[in-house]
Amino acid sequence: MKNILGANDDLAALNRKMFADSGVVVMNLMGSPGSGKTTLLEQTLTRLADKIRIAVIEGDLFTAKDAERIERAGVDVIQINTAGGCHLDAAMIQKACASLDLAAIDLLIVENVGNLVCPAEFDLGETFKAVVLSITEGDDKPLKYPLIFKESAVTLLNKIDLLPFTNFDVKSARNDLTTLHPSIKIFETSCTLGTGLDAWCAWLLERAAV
Amino acid sequence: MKNILGANDDLAALNRKMFADSGVVVMNLMGSPGSGKTTLLEQTLTRLADKIRIAVIEGDLFTAKDAERIERAGVDVIQINTAGGCHLDAAMIQKACASLDLAAIDLLIVENVGNLVCPAEFDLGETFKAVVLSITEGDDKPLKYPLIFKESAVTLLNKIDLLPFTNFDVKSARNDLTTLHPSIKIFETSCTLGTGLDAWCAWLLERAAV
Repeated sequence: MKNILGANDDLAALNRKMFADSGVVVMNLMGSPGSGKTTLLEQTLTRLADKIRIAVIEGDLFTAKDAERIERAGVDVIQINTAGGCHLDAAMIQKACASLDLAAIDLLIVENVGNLVCPAEFDLGETFKAVVLSITEGDDKPLKYPLIFKESAVTLLNKIDLLPFTNFDVKSARNDLTTLHPSIKIFETSCTLGTGLDAWCAWLLERAAV
Repeated sequence: MKNILGANDDLAALNRKMFADSGVVVMNLMGSPGSGKTTLLEQTLTRLADKIRIAVIEGDLFTAKDAERIERAGVDVIQINTAGGCHLDAAMIQKACASLDLAAIDLLIVENVGNLVCPAEFDLGETFKAVVLSITEGDDKPLKYPLIFKESAVTLLNKIDLLPFTNFDVKSARNDLTTLHPSIKIFETSCTLGTGLDAWCAWLLERAAV
């Protein structure tokens, strides 16, 4: 396992240099199955596609369902199928980037496999990680799955429109998140109502413009 | 990877023999983080604890949060911490069982780590697998994460009380589930309203009484 992670780190360093050389900011977007990553991505592209040049890499176990959704947003998308594998790794990203003109984009968004555990362990060479937590998953998740929240620059508390129908405690979740990771940025978002999406996109745009 | 799975299968076969020799039925309960496994388990114990002798093994990355909840239900519970590992394996179960009097129980429920990918690949020696899918995760999940649904004898479409607030298509999910796995049993459950829990517990009781 240490050897696998070590080899991955070496490749991730190469990816990171490649992205820096091309002036591309890369976001590794993670979260549980059904946390709402793809819908959030669709909404993000709608808001940012005329402001910066974006491409997407979609990680999935077998299907191209998510990539087809992103393609409809009119953005270049590369599909990676992991054939059952539970995370993306740096080698997959390196290979996918061979099909992208990195010089022609500002922001590359990588949607990882739906999984709150393994993706956090594999550096892809990204500029920063982001994690989507649907509030229907429960407010105990940051402490139960700490690594992914420690590693991520930003957490989106998503599906916030469902708050009245759950026992999710936003204050408790925010406390746990900032205990794990004091500088973490937190957005409360709903893709159904549009809540928080402008603030999230403004933050992302600022990061991508660096 | 093949060697790891092969070694796991050998240990799982030993576990399966140990369970059969003790007359214990073992359910491996899986699902995404926040699909509602622990709450379902609490509700199941409330309904079945006076009918059959049950013990629980709780898998978690770091905390004992779930085990503490189960303990309150008055059932023997063994905590396994995987120290960040994304699934339980047969060796962990073998070790945990050394602390259990298998002859004194009828049904052992193993709550796996919250993850829709990796746990499906590791046989624990269980009698059958069960998967909890919260309808807030979306109706595309069976086709996106097929292995876990192919491997499970039963799927619980959980948090069904939130159906009016989502675009989850129950008919489409049922079609996909039975396409993947024609003999799969499906329950629609809500631990908030109690929907479907009696039917689920009756089914489980029948399986456990074999």
